[in-house]
Amino acid sequence: MEREEALKLVKVQLTDHRYQHTLGVMETAIALAKQYGGDEQKAELAAIFHDYAKFRPKAEMKEIIIEQGFPQNLLEYNSELWHAPVGAYLAEKEAGIIDPEVLEAIRFHTSGRPGMTLLDKIIYLADYIEPGRHFPGVEEVRNVAKENLDKALIMAVKNTIIFLLKKNQTVYPETFYTYNDLIRKLED
Amino acid sequence: MEREEALKLVKVQLTDHRYQHTLGVMETAIALAKQYGGDEQKAELAAIFHDYAKFRPKAEMKEIIIEQGFPQNLLEYNSELWHAPVGAYLAEKEAGIIDPEVLEAIRFHTSGRPGMTLLDKIIYLADYIEPGRHFPGVEEVRNVAKENLDKALIMAVKNTIIFLLKKNQTVYPETFYTYNDLIRKLED
Repeated sequence: MEREEALKLVKVQLTDHRYQHTLGVMETAIALAKQYGGDEQKAELAAIFHDYAKFRPKAEMKEIIIEQGFPQNLLEYNSELWHAPVGAYLAEKEAGIIDPEVLEAIRFHTSGRPGMTLLDKIIYLADYIEPGRHFPGVEEVRNVAKENLDKALIMAVKNTIIFLLKKNQTVYPETFYTYNDLIRKLED
Repeated sequence: MEREEALKLVKVQLTDHRYQHTLGVMETAIALAKQYGGDEQKAELAAIFHDYAKFRPKAEMKEIIIEQGFPQNLLEYNSELWHAPVGAYLAEKEAGIIDPEVLEAIRFHTSGRPGMTLLDKIIYLADYIEPGRHFPGVEEVRNVAKENLDKALIMAVKNTIIFLLKKNQTVYPETFYTYNDLIRKLED
């Protein structure tokens, strides 16, 4: 799918603010793919669609999670997680995206997963550091991302966990598993 | 078992520094039991024995974990965790402690567990805040412990997780599950 067509499909699903964020993720993901030897076209497509389901009603997302047999424990955790697997599903069903690597990168862009692919990492990190993001610690992650993708990714995952802990929010187990997996591979 | 006999059994297993820590945990656990309606005698006994296996050789602890069918994933995580389940086992085998509540509190004093009992909580927290502990944040937890056991416990678990994250160390899944469980119950 060409960039213009993809953007057109996504734009109507998003608020203006979220669409600007998507453009930032797209540019960042392409740059990271270029730098770390990823597939720039897949990075572009996954970035454009990563928040496709962000503004779907909770009831619709919940129904899809149940009907499609997605991990049911998602329903016990923050609904902010839901748009990722639901987005992957709808990007395929409604927009005809069929590349499994692209769909997986969308599916895991909020939780991560153990054994993240290069594309998964690019999308997760681009979502975290795109130029429109402004929160404590993001600049440090941006700087590390210029040198080491995995180290920057670990920082992003850690910051996300600590952010949730400080707010007394539960943390989705997959996020912890992702952290442990990345730390183990760093040690190797 | 009387306090003097228990202390005598434990003293020979520990360094002087760790024995002093054990005395601190004992006093703190008794005080917490008194305050929150726990069993003071069980708190005393669990506190005295909580670090019973702390200085056993790693090879011995590993063997016990394997032979006794303790969760095998312990072996993939920091060996600092091992002395808790091994301590519960040896407190029973060598010192004849048979009270299951006391043994469980020893078993889970490093990782916690979902559904912690009052005694589990008292031992975990006493281990964290006993007067010999000096690290950033401990005074705040001590103050909260005067008002609310669960809130103090959550702070201790959170601080432990954040401490590990900042050191780029893996976190044992049971610790995360404990955190999520405590947060859920706080929300109720």
